[in-house]
Amino acid sequence: MSSTYGEHLKLSIFGQSHAPAIGMTLDGIPAGLPVDLEALQAFLNRRAPGQNDYSTPRKEEDRPEFLSGVLNGFTCGAPLAAIIRNTNTRSGDYANLKDCPRPGHADYTAQVKYGGYQDTAGGGHFSGRLTAPLCIAGGLCKQWLEAKGIRVGAHIAAIAGIEDEAFDPRSPQLDDVAADFPVLKPEAGEKMREAVAEARMEQDSVGGIIECAVTGLPAGLGEPMFGGVEGRIAQIVYGIPAVKGVEFGMGFEAAKLRGSQNNDPFRMENGNVVTATNHCGGILGGITNGMPLLFRAAIKPTPSISQVQRSVSLSRGENQELIVKGRHDPCIVPRAVPVVEAAAAIAIFDLLLDSGWQK
Amino acid sequence: MSSTYGEHLKLSIFGQSHAPAIGMTLDGIPAGLPVDLEALQAFLNRRAPGQNDYSTPRKEEDRPEFLSGVLNGFTCGAPLAAIIRNTNTRSGDYANLKDCPRPGHADYTAQVKYGGYQDTAGGGHFSGRLTAPLCIAGGLCKQWLEAKGIRVGAHIAAIAGIEDEAFDPRSPQLDDVAADFPVLKPEAGEKMREAVAEARMEQDSVGGIIECAVTGLPAGLGEPMFGGVEGRIAQIVYGIPAVKGVEFGMGFEAAKLRGSQNNDPFRMENGNVVTATNHCGGILGGITNGMPLLFRAAIKPTPSISQVQRSVSLSRGENQELIVKGRHDPCIVPRAVPVVEAAAAIAIFDLLLDSGWQK
Amino acid sequence: MSSTYGEHLKLSIFGQSHAPAIGMTLDGIPAGLPVDLEALQAFLNRRAPGQNDYSTPRKEEDRPEFLSGVLNGFTCGAPLAAIIRNTNTRSGDYANLKDCPRPGHADYTAQVKYGGYQDTAGGGHFSGRLTAPLCIAGGLCKQWLEAKGIRVGAHIAAIAGIEDEAFDPRSPQLDDVAADFPVLKPEAGEKMREAVAEARMEQDSVGGIIECAVTGLPAGLGEPMFGGVEGRIAQIVYGIPAVKGVEFGMGFEAAKLRGSQNNDPFRMENGNVVTATNHCGGILGGITNGMPLLFRAAIKPTPSISQVQRSVSLSRGENQELIVKGRHDPCIVPRAVPVVEAAAAIAIFDLLLDSGWQK
Amino acid sequence: MSSTYGEHLKLSIFGQSHAPAIGMTLDGIPAGLPVDLEALQAFLNRRAPGQNDYSTPRKEEDRPEFLSGVLNGFTCGAPLAAIIRNTNTRSGDYANLKDCPRPGHADYTAQVKYGGYQDTAGGGHFSGRLTAPLCIAGGLCKQWLEAKGIRVGAHIAAIAGIEDEAFDPRSPQLDDVAADFPVLKPEAGEKMREAVAEARMEQDSVGGIIECAVTGLPAGLGEPMFGGVEGRIAQIVYGIPAVKGVEFGMGFEAAKLRGSQNNDPFRMENGNVVTATNHCGGILGGITNGMPLLFRAAIKPTPSISQVQRSVSLSRGENQELIVKGRHDPCIVPRAVPVVEAAAAIAIFDLLLDSGWQK
Repeated sequence: MSSTYGEHLKLSIFGQSHAPAIGMTLDGIPAGLPVDLEALQAFLNRRAPGQNDYSTPRKEEDRPEFLSGVLNGFTCGAPLAAIIRNTNTRSGDYANLKDCPRPGHADYTAQVKYGGYQDTAGGGHFSGRLTAPLCIAGGLCKQWLEAKGIRVGAHIAAIAGIEDEAFDPRSPQLDDVAADFPVLKPEAGEKMREAVAEARMEQDSVGGIIECAVTGLPAGLGEPMFGGVEGRIAQIVYGIPAVKGVEFGMGFEAAKLRGSQNNDPFRMENGNVVTATNHCGGILGGITNGMPLLFRAAIKPTPSISQVQRSVSLSRGENQELIVKGRHDPCIVPRAVPVVEAAAAIAIFDLLLDSGWQK
Repeated sequence: MSSTYGEHLKLSIFGQSHAPAIGMTLDGIPAGLPVDLEALQAFLNRRAPGQNDYSTPRKEEDRPEFLSGVLNGFTCGAPLAAIIRNTNTRSGDYANLKDCPRPGHADYTAQVKYGGYQDTAGGGHFSGRLTAPLCIAGGLCKQWLEAKGIRVGAHIAAIAGIEDEAFDPRSPQLDDVAADFPVLKPEAGEKMREAVAEARMEQDSVGGIIECAVTGLPAGLGEPMFGGVEGRIAQIVYGIPAVKGVEFGMGFEAAKLRGSQNNDPFRMENGNVVTATNHCGGILGGITNGMPLLFRAAIKPTPSISQVQRSVSLSRGENQELIVKGRHDPCIVPRAVPVVEAAAAIAIFDLLLDSGWQK
Repeated sequence: MSSTYGEHLKLSIFGQSHAPAIGMTLDGIPAGLPVDLEALQAFLNRRAPGQNDYSTPRKEEDRPEFLSGVLNGFTCGAPLAAIIRNTNTRSGDYANLKDCPRPGHADYTAQVKYGGYQDTAGGGHFSGRLTAPLCIAGGLCKQWLEAKGIRVGAHIAAIAGIEDEAFDPRSPQLDDVAADFPVLKPEAGEKMREAVAEARMEQDSVGGIIECAVTGLPAGLGEPMFGGVEGRIAQIVYGIPAVKGVEFGMGFEAAKLRGSQNNDPFRMENGNVVTATNHCGGILGGITNGMPLLFRAAIKPTPSISQVQRSVSLSRGENQELIVKGRHDPCIVPRAVPVVEAAAAIAIFDLLLDSGWQK
Repeated sequence: MSSTYGEHLKLSIFGQSHAPAIGMTLDGIPAGLPVDLEALQAFLNRRAPGQNDYSTPRKEEDRPEFLSGVLNGFTCGAPLAAIIRNTNTRSGDYANLKDCPRPGHADYTAQVKYGGYQDTAGGGHFSGRLTAPLCIAGGLCKQWLEAKGIRVGAHIAAIAGIEDEAFDPRSPQLDDVAADFPVLKPEAGEKMREAVAEARMEQDSVGGIIECAVTGLPAGLGEPMFGGVEGRIAQIVYGIPAVKGVEFGMGFEAAKLRGSQNNDPFRMENGNVVTATNHCGGILGGITNGMPLLFRAAIKPTPSISQVQRSVSLSRGENQELIVKGRHDPCIVPRAVPVVEAAAAIAIFDLLLDSGWQK
């Protein structure tokens, strides 16, 4: 059940970094939804590598081929399937990773779990590359949500401790996120880039935080307890490699507040029930309240660094030093921004379908 | 699908605060597991109200009645079902909550979702009281895990910003958690109690953070992507009312570190592969690495406070002030400690069953 | 995952024949659906034992207690839970069944699966008694379907090879099914009763076939392949003990026909698309076509017979004769009629919810 | 949730008859299982068209491309994905089927369900062609079962009412099934072929029955009620287009027997518990008893026939005659034999994984 998500829709992600292809199937989607391949490609390009100085050198565009489920530009009711061919050759020497696992990676846990049969090349099924099919599914869901007036947007809230301005919880500035380096405050972005560059110079890496907002949501989505919006979003966001924390609204900060500070007072505004603040991130009792949904995801620093690291030889049962070869993103946070959006869009679209939404 | 959890096991929670009963069914449990009712009761008592000065006055013991699935002290392979009778009368005037929702509660979202048919008495299905059946299931899972050498323990990491000592990530001090007020450092506990008492005096409430550790886990539990340990634990922990954040290992702090700081070096110790640090919280690639699993959950301050609050009249479409009656916990964090343990135990037991574990 | 059914709704059945109670939880039901307890009781009485000569002597009414999910006569959005207390004492000597399994029963397979921990008393979780909670859930679904103009009805198609008239596939005579002994042709019913009486006299039992029809269904329910209406109904109907065959429309007879005979021609009738015949039982490609849905379930003869039977002693590893004590239904088919209706109603209601139906 | 199957494994099938490709993903498979592509191809060839006189003229081999999940001849723990490219051009005029649905096909129900967005070309997602990816998954499961001593085999039990010999229920003659035309008795096969040829001459089609056996199964697989072996097999077998009935053991015949005839007496044989007969088809209480598992599936006659048929024009709301063009199998039963085996193998492998089986 590893790579399957959803209640009403069923997303299944497959592929390894150096397998013939990566891809996804998406079942349970209503027929007649438009599929804008150009907009999808633009979305996918946001996570593509090598677009600028802060990421690995670009190779080529990740261009999905749709194998099924789309006809004449619309979903046809059958499961969607799309793949992206891998063009990397299996030239690298990854065999060593089965014996000498990289710290911070899944090499060791995969070795234990799969007993040496796992595909280690490029990280195999654990590679960040698997977020590309997630973005295919999420990019489509995003389109379909937008057609209903629901927008999903994210920005870099922090890199290496340098913070961007936060979204206004009652009115997130989705239009103000910069296109090339997704922050609200260009100055903060500039400092972040410097921190990334500095880390690269020092053969090191940095992590960060992504803040995501969803606007235009109807109230009433989600179920109590284990079917709550928080849990369902958290489950898919934790499916993104390197995510180590997910919080909603004030999140961990709420733990320091008093009830009188944290409670969001209700009030009428233009005939609608709104809250004067939005500390809860748009969710009460696991159910959307019609205010913007807000959450943050913590991204750990890229574990692939070029410094000498301490590891072990599993075969010899002794300590061993390791140098990870190849070029790696010193910071994956910018590229992870659309991935977090994709995850949120999938979860929200699934919630909408659950609640009986029809095209 | 609201109140059902699990892949291999199926936990279903039912009941409302003032319904005849609350309870749970637990399907998919192997036969022949011992059920220690006395130990279970001791565990349930940890979340029971009214045990001391920081919670609501005690009424009576929550004593589960097992309706099925247990025979002569062992699971018999059939689904377990257990209920706790509610003794509260429906005397309170909760009808008003359908018109004037309490800030921070699910009153408004339930009204939108259920169209006025919801049971508002005592919070209905959204009541913290529903964590009692969660603790029945979790208390049993905890027993069964312990028989395999797997221990689950939690403590109050913070209340109102006052912090307890953290668990040692490589060797969590599960035995050092105080019995009555679950902290590691009594002085911190003392200050926390004062903060709670102060909040109560001011008709207010405070939140906090719970840290949970699981020791003795085998490496290799969990699946990649959406079946990862983080996502599965997060989903159930978010099923606990008032949780607004969940993080693993260093969590949001990891976002500030460099890769060279955050990566946990491997090393051999007594013939075993361990990590020199445990910033990842025992999980790499969604899969346990054999080190202690560590996570933290943020609990928002109790939304029920006695101060005058701003709300609206839904029927009249205008702002309205609200005073929430009754006595309420000014801080639910201490009582939530065993609930977090229960949630973790259920998720871990489910993961073990998934991985083919047999009695 | 043994006793849980449903995609959108989640039905969980628990209990053993001699456990304190049997019961069910039903999650995922919209709020605001009326619950008519009197009509439900009338439905439950149809499967109750001891109502006439062809079944075991009556003990008492199976009267469910609703523990949650119902408020003031309507569903409240929270999971429904209902139980029926067992009043049978555990006086019988069932221990022997662990060593000397009854032919045709689950005694042996339960012993292998549960290693001796299973509850054998009265058949434990495998007892036909577990169909009572199925009828609670199904009786409610039936009410809710009827309010939408969807009717579910069944009759005895055959007992001991004696056949009732079949339903008219285009216009099933739901109103013509006799109340006390559910057949269309009283003469056939009379002969069936005689066959049952004869079997009882000879310490034997007989089986039969139940035909079920659902009218008023919209076209378009169901999904292709594994989500088809046939598969989803079959899954729940096979959950009824003693069912060994399920067929839709012409079923196995269709295998003998030619395409030109079996294909149902379309035609317009009063502005609606209908089929001139209904050999497909209202399902094409796994999806309802708006014609009545028809299926048949084969019920094996009750395995509990009083004759000496050949079995084995598992402990001694040798052949052994067995006499099953107690009084048993020589034919469970009449009592299984409402159970089949219940199963169908649950499956159909789940399909409706899946397709986005709202109250 | 249309095209997804499994509890522990997750099979997802995608594609339309004239889409770029058809394929499947298979998640939840242990690492280290050998993948014999040659044996798989031989299995797939059994369902390929045009192999002899009784089916449509052969075009080319269906050769799957594995995109992921297999490395160096073994499963690597990541989801398997495989596709088969469609080489049919979309030249045919299928647009008409949206207005004038073919009797016995899913054209009408798809039109209602998908509102005209469905892919009608070649039957779209409802095409029998989708059984090819089912056979990829099933062919692999079959290999893995065989390595554990579990064999799955099927034969044509009947075509057009002409019956083959039945499997010996206690010792199915899997090795005696003919390779080219899968029957036990060549004379019966000869007559069946004649009946098929005759139907073709008369622009008609015939249906039939497939009997499937599984040997070498351990006792104890399956769960009570909705998780029973019958229901789980029935669900996947009903996923095969044209199946209208599924029965286990004696099935509908059991309904005519007495308990004393139908009950399978237990006895010891070489130290093992066996049954003297096998009327139950190897399943008691939904759980395997260690005897061969036996079931039969009814296949309706191919709905595609060349005769003039009565249909309607949906746009004009009036009756209309229809001639289905193209060449079609006058009988799909022989090609469906490996498909039924595939379905059974998948269900059994899933049951094995559920019960904690490890490589």
